[in-house]
Amino acid sequence: MKLSILKDELQAGLNAITRITSKSITLPILNNILIACEKNFLKLASTDLEIGIKYWILAKTEKEGAITVPAKFFANLINLIPDQKIDLEEKNNILYIETKNYKSQIKGISADDFPIIPQIKSNKILEIKAKTLSEGLSQIIDTASPSQTRPEISGISFSVSKNIVEMAATDSFRLAEKKIILPKESSIPETSVILLQKAAREIINIFGEDTKRIKIYFSPNQVMFESEMNEVKHPHIQLISRLIEGEYPNYKEIIPSSFKTQIVLSRQDFLNQIKTASLFSGKINEIKIKANPEQEIVEVYAQNPDLGQNKSRIKAKVRGQKAEVCFNHRFLTAGLSNIKTKEVIFGLNGEEDPAVLKPLDDESFIYVVMPIKSS
Amino acid sequence: MKLSILKDELQAGLNAITRITSKSITLPILNNILIACEKNFLKLASTDLEIGIKYWILAKTEKEGAITVPAKFFANLINLIPDQKIDLEEKNNILYIETKNYKSQIKGISADDFPIIPQIKSNKILEIKAKTLSEGLSQIIDTASPSQTRPEISGISFSVSKNIVEMAATDSFRLAEKKIILPKESSIPETSVILLQKAAREIINIFGEDTKRIKIYFSPNQVMFESEMNEVKHPHIQLISRLIEGEYPNYKEIIPSSFKTQIVLSRQDFLNQIKTASLFSGKINEIKIKANPEQEIVEVYAQNPDLGQNKSRIKAKVRGQKAEVCFNHRFLTAGLSNIKTKEVIFGLNGEEDPAVLKPLDDESFIYVVMPIKSS
Repeated sequence: MKLSILKDELQAGLNAITRITSKSITLPILNNILIACEKNFLKLASTDLEIGIKYWILAKTEKEGAITVPAKFFANLINLIPDQKIDLEEKNNILYIETKNYKSQIKGISADDFPIIPQIKSNKILEIKAKTLSEGLSQIIDTASPSQTRPEISGISFSVSKNIVEMAATDSFRLAEKKIILPKESSIPETSVILLQKAAREIINIFGEDTKRIKIYFSPNQVMFESEMNEVKHPHIQLISRLIEGEYPNYKEIIPSSFKTQIVLSRQDFLNQIKTASLFSGKINEIKIKANPEQEIVEVYAQNPDLGQNKSRIKAKVRGQKAEVCFNHRFLTAGLSNIKTKEVIFGLNGEEDPAVLKPLDDESFIYVVMPIKSS
Repeated sequence: MKLSILKDELQAGLNAITRITSKSITLPILNNILIACEKNFLKLASTDLEIGIKYWILAKTEKEGAITVPAKFFANLINLIPDQKIDLEEKNNILYIETKNYKSQIKGISADDFPIIPQIKSNKILEIKAKTLSEGLSQIIDTASPSQTRPEISGISFSVSKNIVEMAATDSFRLAEKKIILPKESSIPETSVILLQKAAREIINIFGEDTKRIKIYFSPNQVMFESEMNEVKHPHIQLISRLIEGEYPNYKEIIPSSFKTQIVLSRQDFLNQIKTASLFSGKINEIKIKANPEQEIVEVYAQNPDLGQNKSRIKAKVRGQKAEVCFNHRFLTAGLSNIKTKEVIFGLNGEEDPAVLKPLDDESFIYVVMPIKSS
């Protein structure tokens, strides 16, 4: 293997692929990334056996071949070398890195030992704008359950029906759903899969800045996200991930369609109130929200026998019944953080039934949150 | 106690005093800060029994009195409250905090239980520009020994003689010294004390941005740094600290006065070389520096049997003998990070004798570092 590449392009590739490599003791090659010279391309690849990423960049290639080297170590080295033009060469499982002022050698492991990242053949292909997909995923990803006891809800529900993509995540205390309307009806039949949360995180990382379209290939057990190389210098990327088996719960049922109390208020003011009250909340993170339609006021209250108490009042539009409901402040903060509008709708249904946070004048996102029953 | 204060001014005071409070289990009041209303001032104070800080801000005062409250908790609350005007009132050891939209109560501990921070009476007073002092201290502070086995060198040597202030720190592997020339001869007799490293850190934190002069009061066992309130709204601050007993080692002896090899090179290029080589260094952080006057080149080399090796070469002015010396890369990086000039002098004295890093054309700072004997 022998080729030349610019530092900035190599760095971008390493940023995209190294995050999924791990410190595996049982299978040390998973700490490594694959570096290969294929035709006119430098190919980079990494895998944790659940997700695989392949990344091709146009390079000045001289000799085909491949090697694997420790991912973080190689990325650190490339970050530190100040020179732009980088020559890479493999000889006897050693990677030689040479620039104007720097010469390094890294001991590698043979590319033959690197796990094969499966290729997906599928005609079920959905096209979507990369940035729309990553921004949508980033609004819901942190709501997925951290526990693996119910594997379905540790992932992200991803459904396509005609021209609507619905993505959802829940941890059974709260639920976030994002709808994307496609510019035209997709050609694929109705499809519902459950993505790994970490695959969704890599999609946000890799395609987050990209305004181009990506293709999603669905197969029964796997999915591939592909960004085409559509200009010189723009890399070609494939992210292949296993899907989570099982049926995602029918979450639509729990989304309330009406509210006993509807509040419209400033997102930032409400966040400030909750964060300040959170200092005084107890072990179960309990804070109390009071809304009064007569006074057009939202009050947030918290108290703690060891520390003291806090109360704040802000003006808000309040319709419907007077309300007094307790919530885990972390759940409210998380929901509000995923909303981008200046004003939000906070819909309450009494002390025990699910409440809703959503952007004002935007039906694409909804966040459902269960109250804490007052003790 | 009852007074009103602006949030920004209270925040600045809390930033200055809360860092030395600790999570003391044996003496819980040390987690607290003192808040007092004295004449026209809000007074804040904190102590860890070694260092005490007092901070006065002009405020709209209504009733004298005092209370202590948990430091971090109170600071977090003030950071989060968005309103500017803050009313503070003490009743029955509870602090009431009230702003336009927020009302809080914090359980406090009686101010009577707060340790007395000693007052220093001394005629031995040195005046120095606050910024000059903190910038000088920040260049040497991290070179002090982290170990308490030799308490003297865990502190900062601080000496005044005529119009020269000399500050030094060492951990016996390296030494940093900073000289400050005062605009006129000081009126105090020759003085040498050893400051606590953490007192020096607080001085940098508190007086770092301040271009005004501060007064240093020396007493046999203690020292006080005082910033006078010389305009309305500018706070009056006193930092009182115990001194470390004992004699600071006569470090002047080990500063080499000449070099077998003298190198002048770009600080940034040299830092890049060292950091890159450091990736390949072994357990004792060993990297090798080679300098060749014939080629006018500095080479940095490191290797590690598990990882590989790295070599870099940059142009430099090299005078004197050819050299090949090993160093702990952390010590070189630390020394270079405390130098602000674009070019540095690196003076070598063979494989075993102390080397020197110092800014080009600036005699005020010197960093001495011991080589690692080649194995």
